[in-house]
Amino acid sequence: METLHISSTQNPLIKRVMALQHKSQLRRSQQRIVVEGARELQHCVDAGFNVETVIHCPSLFNPSHLHLAPATQLVEVTPQVYDKIAYRGSTEGVMAIVEPRTLALSQLELGDNPLIVVLEGVEKPGNIGAVLRSADAARATAVIVCDPLTDLYNPNLIRSSIGAIFTVPCVACTSDECISFFKHHGINILTAQLQDSEPYYHTPMCGPTAIVMGTEATGLTSAWRQAATAHIRIPMQGSLDSLNVSVSTAILLFEAVRQRITSH
Amino acid sequence: METLHISSTQNPLIKRVMALQHKSQLRRSQQRIVVEGARELQHCVDAGFNVETVIHCPSLFNPSHLHLAPATQLVEVTPQVYDKIAYRGSTEGVMAIVEPRTLALSQLELGDNPLIVVLEGVEKPGNIGAVLRSADAARATAVIVCDPLTDLYNPNLIRSSIGAIFTVPCVACTSDECISFFKHHGINILTAQLQDSEPYYHTPMCGPTAIVMGTEATGLTSAWRQAATAHIRIPMQGSLDSLNVSVSTAILLFEAVRQRITSH
Repeated sequence: METLHISSTQNPLIKRVMALQHKSQLRRSQQRIVVEGARELQHCVDAGFNVETVIHCPSLFNPSHLHLAPATQLVEVTPQVYDKIAYRGSTEGVMAIVEPRTLALSQLELGDNPLIVVLEGVEKPGNIGAVLRSADAARATAVIVCDPLTDLYNPNLIRSSIGAIFTVPCVACTSDECISFFKHHGINILTAQLQDSEPYYHTPMCGPTAIVMGTEATGLTSAWRQAATAHIRIPMQGSLDSLNVSVSTAILLFEAVRQRITSH
Repeated sequence: METLHISSTQNPLIKRVMALQHKSQLRRSQQRIVVEGARELQHCVDAGFNVETVIHCPSLFNPSHLHLAPATQLVEVTPQVYDKIAYRGSTEGVMAIVEPRTLALSQLELGDNPLIVVLEGVEKPGNIGAVLRSADAARATAVIVCDPLTDLYNPNLIRSSIGAIFTVPCVACTSDECISFFKHHGINILTAQLQDSEPYYHTPMCGPTAIVMGTEATGLTSAWRQAATAHIRIPMQGSLDSLNVSVSTAILLFEAVRQRITSH
């Protein structure tokens, strides 16, 4: 590994990193994403992603413990250059250009008893990232984002997932594809909805289960509500009418984990 | 109610609103806070807070449905002025100057079987706001913030709580005061900690219960760990080592709700 040194913000690599951070279209066409932060990059390396280039500020970060592949290009930059490219401040001093992995529904390894989270139309990258973090902790089989309004490798999504985007199998597809897939594989579809629903703790989640969440504002589309095995809700006992979607998802996901563990 | 019209950003009232938004010291000395947004203000009014002044942009917001007290001063501002004072964009077009209510531990109404959330040293206003939102939905008895690093009426906290700061009884105090209070009232102290702990779903939460959460980075202080009735954890089955504190709090809080409801 030969190390490059860059001290100019006009360097083409620096310009490319900034463009990849801000333009989802470029991320798609180049099939490259930017991963920022020490923890995030470590999860990315551990998960076997192809890391093309690691850019770091030597005074802030030492990349030697990352166990990078020999083909990875190492680039040292000055604090000034790092400040310029850092999307979220320069405290950690490391980012990388990485090849994303796009998983198709058919490639999901479902195992014996899948537990899947589906997010339909959820818009905020921060919410999707937070759901991924919970899905990692619950060792969910996958997170499926239907009809996504953000790309899965949005920098804010990577950041809020703290790297769970690399540890949890993720699929983006349409709701119709996802419903067909679940029907084909005999996976119970539990849709979260306030109307016509049962409290979630009365609903069995020990079998193959998908927990399907819509947006806080508009909920789920009728396609999902009609395809559901059961409609579930978290009873709202206070004055407000909804929970944050990442919070409700975690409550339902960990109820499934609890049922599976305590039923043995 | 006489309505004032303001079209200058140099107006003293406009300057005061901006200062109250940005300076917690001023909020303390004047005993006034700024509440922004239609939902937040509605919860604030419904909860009987003393609303001194409502500032709105007539093209965006009609205050007539708020049911304000006769003593409330109504102020109409131009879109330009509103843009200037809006902390989070001008989409809703309403904010108010409100007298905060500070509740002491001794004023908490514990009811028959309290369920309390304690946050020790949690720093981010957004996390505290999200916990308040869950506490509202679970109809928790109170949220107690120990050794707070932010004031409870920080604009970001009000915003992320979507007004739950007004619907859930909140107390700020020291950890020592809080521990003494719980001991005195026979409230079980369940501390969330990864070490020396049992999975939370094996811990009874049907009696008087306080769920005590520390920061993601450093956890709880030894005072809390030693005072605990039980140490509980959410088993982390994935690659990451922690959940967002608002997510873990919600999982534990709703487990207590589930146990209380399904044990009947």
